[in-house]
Amino acid sequence: MAQMRICFIGDSFVSGAHDGECLGWAGRISAAARRRGHDLSPYNLGIRGETSAQIAKRWRAETEVRQSVQQEGHLVFEFGVNDAREVNGKRQLELAQSLAAVREVLSAAARWKPTLMVGPPPGTDQARNARVAELSTEIRSVCAEFSVPYFDSYGSLVTSSLFLADVKAVDDTHPSAAGYAEWAKLIDAWPAWRTWLP
Amino acid sequence: MAQMRICFIGDSFVSGAHDGECLGWAGRISAAARRRGHDLSPYNLGIRGETSAQIAKRWRAETEVRQSVQQEGHLVFEFGVNDAREVNGKRQLELAQSLAAVREVLSAAARWKPTLMVGPPPGTDQARNARVAELSTEIRSVCAEFSVPYFDSYGSLVTSSLFLADVKAVDDTHPSAAGYAEWAKLIDAWPAWRTWLP
Repeated sequence: MAQMRICFIGDSFVSGAHDGECLGWAGRISAAARRRGHDLSPYNLGIRGETSAQIAKRWRAETEVRQSVQQEGHLVFEFGVNDAREVNGKRQLELAQSLAAVREVLSAAARWKPTLMVGPPPGTDQARNARVAELSTEIRSVCAEFSVPYFDSYGSLVTSSLFLADVKAVDDTHPSAAGYAEWAKLIDAWPAWRTWLP
Repeated sequence: MAQMRICFIGDSFVSGAHDGECLGWAGRISAAARRRGHDLSPYNLGIRGETSAQIAKRWRAETEVRQSVQQEGHLVFEFGVNDAREVNGKRQLELAQSLAAVREVLSAAARWKPTLMVGPPPGTDQARNARVAELSTEIRSVCAEFSVPYFDSYGSLVTSSLFLADVKAVDDTHPSAAGYAEWAKLIDAWPAWRTWLP
């Protein structure tokens, strides 16, 4: 039985926006790990609307105060869709800006604590999806540089009719409880996650 | 239908330690509000083991980055048991230290955002319970000074055989899912909470 604190740091997909059950994928994979007998303390540090640059500014202070001598600390990041989102016709962060933030976060995180990265998911806006798919591929490369396991949410969910129908019914961006459950099922089966919490 | 972001700031009872469902009372009352049709974004800022003095240091920075121009911000605090807990025979915070921290937090919080305070719950250690009961009474007085509604968890749960049996079965301090559900049911019926989220 593993004993650990895990900080989940990211955007609205981490905080579970539009999930009527208030769990998101982070809450669901944490509850599943507890059902397998692990003593896991999850800390959900997702904030709606945040880009990688905003997360780069706050993640360290917020995760440092959540460490403990009693339980080993771990980090799981997820972000990217807000970077690729256009606001008033302008992409919020250019690809190079996103990758600079990803590199800044992951280089420090991976030196400090066991770290995983969950990639941004698809939605129903095809133009944005193309930007998210490109960003996801690039984040995967940065993760490889720092030996951080990467979960390809985009590739895993872009063929899921359940997930995409759910997102379409909500706001073209977020799933509801059913879509979060589908996403959580995939992450829960990810070998890198199961290495932490068999 | 109300649209708001609520930061829940506190200790392990906020983070939902020992809840197999990873919801705690904060997740349960948030999910219940969503079921009533409200567009609520809860942010769980509970940290295991923290005293009021530790919470006083971090609450402002962590809640400031969670505000949005789109959704009205609200604050709910809960802490106190760790203050009254003895570690190596010594109470972690003396009553006067706790009350100074409570006053510091609530005076700033209530000037800034709509604020509620949930009091610390009973456990099965009678000596500690006496200290928690005293602290709870004093926190209630500070809340009255700043017109912050106070939910008396101690008084509400000390007669609940379900809650106390659950706490006894866990670790003499925390409930499991069943106890959190009982506590959440009481807070969910609290008029001050329902004024925010009818």
